[in-house]
Amino acid sequence: MPGEFDLIRRYFHAHTTHTVLGVGDDGALLQPRPDMQLVVSTDMLVSGTHFFADADPFLLGWKTAAVNVSDMAAMGANPRWITLALALPAIDEPWLGGFARGFRDCCEAYCVDWIGGDTTRGPLNLCATVFGEVPAGEAIRRDGALHGDDIWVSGWPGMAALGLGQLRGELQLLSGWEESCLERLHRPMPRVALGIALRGIATAMLDISDGLLGDLSHILDASGVGAMIEETALPVETLLAACKRTEQVMAALLGGGDDYELLFCAPRERRGQVEALARHLELPLNRIGRILDKSGLWIQRGNGVCEAISVQGFDHFKS
Amino acid sequence: MPGEFDLIRRYFHAHTTHTVLGVGDDGALLQPRPDMQLVVSTDMLVSGTHFFADADPFLLGWKTAAVNVSDMAAMGANPRWITLALALPAIDEPWLGGFARGFRDCCEAYCVDWIGGDTTRGPLNLCATVFGEVPAGEAIRRDGALHGDDIWVSGWPGMAALGLGQLRGELQLLSGWEESCLERLHRPMPRVALGIALRGIATAMLDISDGLLGDLSHILDASGVGAMIEETALPVETLLAACKRTEQVMAALLGGGDDYELLFCAPRERRGQVEALARHLELPLNRIGRILDKSGLWIQRGNGVCEAISVQGFDHFKS
Repeated sequence: MPGEFDLIRRYFHAHTTHTVLGVGDDGALLQPRPDMQLVVSTDMLVSGTHFFADADPFLLGWKTAAVNVSDMAAMGANPRWITLALALPAIDEPWLGGFARGFRDCCEAYCVDWIGGDTTRGPLNLCATVFGEVPAGEAIRRDGALHGDDIWVSGWPGMAALGLGQLRGELQLLSGWEESCLERLHRPMPRVALGIALRGIATAMLDISDGLLGDLSHILDASGVGAMIEETALPVETLLAACKRTEQVMAALLGGGDDYELLFCAPRERRGQVEALARHLELPLNRIGRILDKSGLWIQRGNGVCEAISVQGFDHFKS
Repeated sequence: MPGEFDLIRRYFHAHTTHTVLGVGDDGALLQPRPDMQLVVSTDMLVSGTHFFADADPFLLGWKTAAVNVSDMAAMGANPRWITLALALPAIDEPWLGGFARGFRDCCEAYCVDWIGGDTTRGPLNLCATVFGEVPAGEAIRRDGALHGDDIWVSGWPGMAALGLGQLRGELQLLSGWEESCLERLHRPMPRVALGIALRGIATAMLDISDGLLGDLSHILDASGVGAMIEETALPVETLLAACKRTEQVMAALLGGGDDYELLFCAPRERRGQVEALARHLELPLNRIGRILDKSGLWIQRGNGVCEAISVQGFDHFKS
C-alpha cells in the first residue's frame, strides 16, 4: 500500500505555468503581478451533501475545481492558482486517477495552476482554495448595487436543477434534454470571461450557487436595496423545452443552484455594453429586473400585479 | 435553527487589520506588498485521524490555525492571511464558539487576518489555507541542503509525542510534566520569528509534523543528499526529565510529530549566527548532525559506531 507521500506525488503532480514553486514543499510560492489584488475563496464539498457517494470521479474532480473558479468569475477576477485538500476513506487508485484528471482538466481549461494540497484519511471531503488576480480596486463585490440598476443573469439558470430533479426521480425531462441538463449539473463552465469583461460595468455580482433568488438576496442585503423581478423577462424558454411543467421550471430557475451562472447589476446606461458583451461572448444575458431603493424582493407577474416573494435558497444547515 | 449564513456571520466574523475585503463576498480581497512572493499552504484535520472527537474545541481551533501558521514559519515567511472551511455533523453552538475563539486567538497571536471560509454539513473536518509573504527569492525551501551543512533543530522535539503517549496510556510521565507536554501537544507555538530570522542563513528548512527523521528525509530527498545524526547531540535532557524510559524518549524525539519545531540546515560558517539567534530568541537551537554527499540517513551512536537508520514517519495512509 503506497504511503501518503507516494500518493501525493503520483496523482497531485501537476504541470504549472506561472508558479515559482508548486507541490512538494511546506508551501507553494507565487509571485502576484504588480498592482494586482488577490481574490481568495475556499469551498468544501462533502459526500452526501454536495454530491452522491457514487458520483463519477472525473466529473467530481472537474466540479470541485469549477465551483472555486466560479467564485473568481463572480468577483471579476482572473483565476490563477488553486490548492486541493482531500480526505479519503481508503485508497482507491482508479477513483483517485479519475478525480485528479477531472480536477486537472478544469484547471487547464481555465489556465489555473494546481499548486499544492493535502491528503489524509477520513470521510470523503474535498476542499479547494482558489486565488485570482484583479487590478487593484476593480473587483466586483456584492455591495455596490444602486437604485435603478438593471439586474442581469447569464445563460440558462435552472438547467442543472432540472438535471438533478431527473436524477432524483422528481421530474421527467423531455426526450433529448437529459444529457444537456446533466452536463450543466456535472460539468459547469464558470463564466470567467464574462466576469472579467464586466469590470467597470457591473456594480454588484455573484455566481448563482444557492439559487437565483437566494443569491440575489445576498446582493440586496449587502447593498442595502431591494429588487423587482419581471416574471416575463425570466429566461424560461429553454427550460420549458426540457420540461413541460411550468411550476417545476420556475422552481428550478428561481431556486436551483449548481449552474454557476453570474447574476449582476449594472446601471441602465450600460445596457448597450452588456448587450454587446452577450453577442461577443455568444452567451445569453437576460435583463430580469431592476434594483429598488426600498428593501424587499418583489416579482411583477405577467398580468402586471406585483407580489412580495420570499427566498428559499438552498441552505446546508436548514432542516 | 439558524441557517448557514447566520452561522457564518455569528462565528466567522473576524476583525481584520491588513485586508481589503474579508468574510462575506464570493472571495476575500488582499493586496500583497510590492516585491513580495506569496507562500500558500493548506492543511486538513479530520476527527479520529488528527484529533480525538471529544477534543477541547478552543484548543482544536488554536491548533487548526497553528499547524498552518507553522508551514509559513517553515518557509521563512510572514503569515498574513488564513481561510477556514469546516464540515460539521450538527450545529453545536458552544462547540462552535469555543472553536472560533481558539482559531481567532491563534490568528491574533501571529497577526494573521482570518479572511473567509466555508461551512457545510458533514463529518467533522477542518481545512485551513494560509498565505504568507516573503521577499522574492528568500523563501527557505527543502531542496537547498548542501554537503557539509550543519543540521539544526529548534526547541524540544518529542514533548508533544510524550503528551500523546500519556493520553493514550502508553507511557507514564513523571510528576509535574504532564501539563507542559500536553500544552505542547494541544497548543503548539509555531516558530515564526525563528523562521523569518533564518532567511539568508538556512539552506533548507521545514517544520516537524511527521517526526524528526521522517521530515529530515524529505529535505534529504529534495536536496539529493544524505545525513549523519549524532546521537549525543540530540536534545534529550528535557524529555528524560519528563519520562525515564530512554527508548520511549528516543521514539518521541525521532518519530513524534506535532511539536512544529523547525528543522533546518545551515553552512558551518553560520554557526555563530545561529547561536546568536538562539540567545536572542531565548530558544534552544541544537546542532544535531551534518549533511553528507552520499545518500542515506545514518546515526552516530555514543560509542562512535555509525548505523544506517530507517525512517518511520507518521503516514496517514500506512497501515
